[in-house]
Order: sequence, then structure tokens, then C-alpha cells
Amino acid sequence: MKKHIFTLPGDGVGPEVMAGAIEVLKKIAKKYNHEFTFEEGLIGGAAYDVHGTPLDDKTLDRAKNSDAILLGAVGGPAWDNVDKTLRPEQGLLKIRKELGLFSNLRPIKVFDKLIPASPLKEAIVGGTDILFVRELTGGLYFGKPSERKDGGNSVVDTLQYTREEIERIVEYGFEAATLRGNKLTSVDKANVLESSRMWREIVDAKSVDYPDVEVEHALVDSTAMKLITDPGHFDVVVTENLFGDILSDEASVITGSIGLLPSASLNSSGFGLYEPVHGSAPDIAGENKVNPLAMILSAAMMLKYTFHLTDESEAIEQSVDAALKSGFHTADLDIEGGKTVSTEEMVEVVINNI
Amino acid sequence: MKKHIFTLPGDGVGPEVMAGAIEVLKKIAKKYNHEFTFEEGLIGGAAYDVHGTPLDDKTLDRAKNSDAILLGAVGGPAWDNVDKTLRPEQGLLKIRKELGLFSNLRPIKVFDKLIPASPLKEAIVGGTDILFVRELTGGLYFGKPSERKDGGNSVVDTLQYTREEIERIVEYGFEAATLRGNKLTSVDKANVLESSRMWREIVDAKSVDYPDVEVEHALVDSTAMKLITDPGHFDVVVTENLFGDILSDEASVITGSIGLLPSASLNSSGFGLYEPVHGSAPDIAGENKVNPLAMILSAAMMLKYTFHLTDESEAIEQSVDAALKSGFHTADLDIEGGKTVSTEEMVEVVINNI
Ligand SMILES: CC(C)[C@H](C(=O)O)[C@@H](O)C(=O)O
Ligand SMILES: CC(C)[C@H](C(=O)O)[C@@H](O)C(=O)O
Repeated sequence: MKKHIFTLPGDGVGPEVMAGAIEVLKKIAKKYNHEFTFEEGLIGGAAYDVHGTPLDDKTLDRAKNSDAILLGAVGGPAWDNVDKTLRPEQGLLKIRKELGLFSNLRPIKVFDKLIPASPLKEAIVGGTDILFVRELTGGLYFGKPSERKDGGNSVVDTLQYTREEIERIVEYGFEAATLRGNKLTSVDKANVLESSRMWREIVDAKSVDYPDVEVEHALVDSTAMKLITDPGHFDVVVTENLFGDILSDEASVITGSIGLLPSASLNSSGFGLYEPVHGSAPDIAGENKVNPLAMILSAAMMLKYTFHLTDESEAIEQSVDAALKSGFHTADLDIEGGKTVSTEEMVEVVINNI
Repeated sequence: MKKHIFTLPGDGVGPEVMAGAIEVLKKIAKKYNHEFTFEEGLIGGAAYDVHGTPLDDKTLDRAKNSDAILLGAVGGPAWDNVDKTLRPEQGLLKIRKELGLFSNLRPIKVFDKLIPASPLKEAIVGGTDILFVRELTGGLYFGKPSERKDGGNSVVDTLQYTREEIERIVEYGFEAATLRGNKLTSVDKANVLESSRMWREIVDAKSVDYPDVEVEHALVDSTAMKLITDPGHFDVVVTENLFGDILSDEASVITGSIGLLPSASLNSSGFGLYEPVHGSAPDIAGENKVNPLAMILSAAMMLKYTFHLTDESEAIEQSVDAALKSGFHTADLDIEGGKTVSTEEMVEVVINNI
């Protein structure tokens, strides 16, 4: 298979984790006889420094013309005083919106070796395996108006959804549930928000098409509690943009390491952008210390979701699993009796296990 | 001191916990020579069943004419099919809004005896003592429009704040910080929302008047993580309505029991409504099983915040503390070597310790 991959390393530790993921993909290409080509672009603060904007239209076009996108991380204090419309994060919001990447998948899985590193008690966190399906291109993030009013004496943001936007993400949630444990939790705030009431209606209507999927509605505040008291309760969680942002981040830390969590942002034809859940971590950038596994597992998600190379994807996942099981880990993790290695060494271990 | 207290027991376990709080207040009145009178009203499903609305205007007037309000809990599956504008929660939203109760205080404190019952590891949760200051009458909960559009093909909710609404709650946050550890975390989503950017500016402007308070800005998603990984980091947290709803509920479970957490909702003249953080728990209603301590501690907050009866308030808090220390607890709690008692017995213990 011939695939052209567009890489956007971004800021902070982005370039280091990206380098690792590319190495791993090259090994996969070699082993499974594929031809992966890589083309690099600028996003975030790195793009702002060169082009004066966190994502220019040429880069966007090149991204569109690729087969899939890998993104490292954006942002950092270096750009704190940049005008708000030009901040690094705006590049991320723009590429998601412009490429229609409405479906954000965030698998939250506890690795056995890391259970002791979780802030939660072992009995509670063990076995956690949740897939968040977060709507990514609508809601409060993009609704208009979003502005000051009355001469600066009031302000408004708008939570807006079309029926179609809700339907397609809810459908994605149901589809994902059928591929996993047939259990779907739809999260909203239907006791307060009209958008949540419409969301709930759409979930109920769609559920008729998925008789095997057990559906539950949950409020965002109760879900924030249950993720801590009983994370094992959840299988697939589908929710709107802001709730998904908060809840998936909350869930990410219960695993004991955010440095292991990948994500995919997909459009309706399966094209996607793949990025780690963690941020740019400017404090350790350039030190060969960052955990490359979230980026590597994001590349594995790309193989599976966009290229449908299931064996290749699993080969990476198994190699990461094996590496952790043998005790290899970067400094962010704490594995009893394990061996702390650098970013590059960790990549080596993963490659050698493939 | 003569005080007239309006009680709204509400639904589910509401009447049971209210009865307990009234007993405790009667003991306080006797011991400290006050005259507390009690008048009861209907709210929530209980009000809907009688008046066809979760809060009628007469009840609202009686509430306004009291010196303070105690509320039990509202809601339950019995009213699931009631029209959305008449659901039990609407009574709660209405009384908050109509009485201008914009400042919602939710203290989250870990009782030593309950540390083993927390879902978090002891080393992480020990010493947690956070005061949430949540804006309660603005934001997405009340902004207009909140409606279907395009013939039902789209939907909109509005996150709206006036400068004054933000200023008064932020000021409340600073004042609260000066009475505690002089540390204020202001939570927003300023990398996405215009309302959050205005919020941040107002916090920065106000901070000039409070040179002793250490202020930090934090994003709502990072805060959702940090509450789990490092709850000891927080002292006072000030935030808008929806973020406060989600984050304070998240924080509430890390204590090991939501059955102990009180709250206050105040207007600008110190008048307030006091209610437990827990809900109506219809599954155990009427069984003499519910934990009355959150309601009792809410009554203690009333004595302190609205009546300025500090000694009396502390007498209740100390009695609750002593009861837990001696191992008495209701069935929701798990205290090693403790004694499980009924709601009424728990109230007895608290009264006898005063
Ligand atoms: C950087 C920010 C705009 C972004 C978001 O809120 O979507 C991030 O928190 C994420 O979750 O990917
Ligand atoms: C019942 C609901 C409307 C309410 C809220 O979201 O404010 C509740 O969750 C709370 O936090 O008091």
C-alpha cells in the first residue's frame, strides 16, 4: 500500500514524539511491504513564528491532499502574548473545522503495569477501558455570536448544533459501540440545556436502529463523578464538544499516564488527524525525555482507522504493550522494578519488538 | 436572636434530612437562647403534584420574606415524563434566579476518618480542603436564546454574562480567599471562549485590589485532571455556572462521601438558600437510611453566612466531627470499626454532642 502522510510536529515536545512515530511507521512499512512517504508542515507557535499565523492556507491545502495527518502538539508560554486569534491552539481548531474532523476518538485504557501509578485505588481503576467519542467541530467552540456586547459590558458565546451534526456523531457512537461491548453512554445536561434535550431525542431515535446496543443517558455532572467512583461502568461515551473535552481529560489521568493516550479526529470519509492527548510540555522539550508512546499509538490508530491496516496497527500496539510489560518506560511513568529510558531508547525498544 | 427559617424539604430523601436539620437547629436555639421559627413550603416534584408547577409564586414570596431558606433535594424518576418546563429541577433554577442567589459555595473537605473510603489513594486525597465559588444565576443556564431553530433542524443555547455578573462573583472569590489560604484558582476556557477571556481580564483587574491573594488561571479541562492528581493544590476555586457544576461534583466524590457535603447559595445582601450537594436519592427515600449530615452542615453554613452566628455554626461542625470520630455513620459511609446507624440515630448523636 502506498500512503502519503502529512506530519505537523508543532511545538514543545511535538517534534521529538513525531520523529519517534515516523521511525516506527518506517519499520512497519518495511516489514509489511508498504510505501509510506512523509511530508512535514508547520502548525501552532512554530507556524506563527515563520508565517505570522498558526496555520496558513497552503499548509491546510497540503494537509487536505495527504492520505492522513499526524500532529504532535501545539502551544506554550512563548506565545502567551500573541493576539488571541493567532494563538497556537487556533491552528488546531482551524484544521479540525476546515477538514470537517467532527469525530474525535479518545480511547482510555489502563495498562496493567501502570495500575499502581494511577491516582485511583487499584480495585477501582483496574480493567478501565473506555472509548470517548467527542463531537469536535460544533457546539460552544464554533457557535456565533462569540463576542463582547453593550460596549464591552456583556459577553456571549453560542452553543449551536444542527440536527445533522448531532446525528452523525451519535451514529458514530452507536457504530463504535457495536464494535466493542454494545454499551453506549450519551452524556448531556438535558435538565438545563435545550441542545441537550435535542441531543437526547436524537439518541433515542437512533437507538431504534441499534437494538443490540444498551443505551443510557447521563448528566455531565454525574458522569464527572462516576468516572472516578466507577470507571469500569463505561464502554463507549458519546458527547458534545465541551463536555467531551472536560470528561475525556478527566478520564485520561485515571490511567496513571496521559503519556500513553492517543486520539483520532475523523471526517465522514474516514480521513483523519491523529495526535496524542498530551500537550506540548515545553518544560521538558528538547531533553529526549518525553514519552513517545501516545504519538506512536496515534500512528497505530491511523493505520487502523484511515488505512484499514489492522494487522499493522495491532503490531504496534502489541509492541508497545510488550515494551511496558518488560518494564521499559520514560521518566513520566513509574513502573516498579522498571527501567527508565530516553525518548529515543523507548522508540528503539518499540521498533525492535515489531 | 429571632429568625424565621423557610424550609423546602422537596422530594425523595429531602423530608428526612430536613427533619434532622430542624431538630439540630432547635437544640442550638435552646442552648444559645435563640428563637428559630420554621415554616414549610413545597418545591420540586412535591410542589408539582399539588400545584402543577415545581415552584409557585406564593411559595416564592414566602421564601423571600423569610430570614433564610433550607432546601432538601428535588427530582426523581416519578417526574420523568413531566413537561420539561415543569420538571422538579426547574423549581430549583427558578428560586436561585428569582432570589438572585448568584454565589454558590461548596466546601469540599476530607474528613480524616473517611480517607480510606475515598476512590483516590490516601496519599493523594489527604488534607484536601477546597472551597468552590460557583456563579449560579448566569451563563449557559439562563442565556437567551435557548431554543430550536430552522423548523427543528438546529438548536442553540447561549452562554451570556454581563460584566457586573462576573465582577461580583470574582470579588466573592477573592474575599473568600482572604478568609482562607489567600490562594485563588480562576477556572475558564480562555483558549476557546470569549466569555472566558472577559472573565480572565476581570480576574486580573480585581487582583490589583487583593495584593495578598495569589491568583492562578487554569483551564477547565486541566482542572478536571488536577482535581484528581493533586487536589491538595487547590484552596478557593472560582468559576462560572456550568464549569462549577461539573468540577464541584467531580471534587465532591474524592472525599469518600457526598453525603457529608453542604452548600450555600447567597445573594448580594447575604441572604441565602442552603442545601446538601447530594440529590433526592429516591431509591432509599423513606427508609430512615439517608445520611443527614450534609443537610445538617448546610444548616451550620446558614448560621455562619446569613445569621453570623459563628459559635453556633462551629458547635454543629464540631459535633458532626466528633460523631464521625467516634465511628458513628449512616449506611452510605464506610468507617473501619465504626457503627452503622439510622438517619434518626445519627441526628440524635449530633444533638447529644452539642
Ligand atoms: C487546545 C484546545 C483548544 C483543545 C480543545 O479544547 O479541544 C484541547 O484541550 C483538546 O482537547 O484537544
Ligand atoms: C439540578 C441541576 C439543575 C443543578 C445544577 O446543575 O445546577 C444541580 O446539578 C446542582 O449542581 O445543584
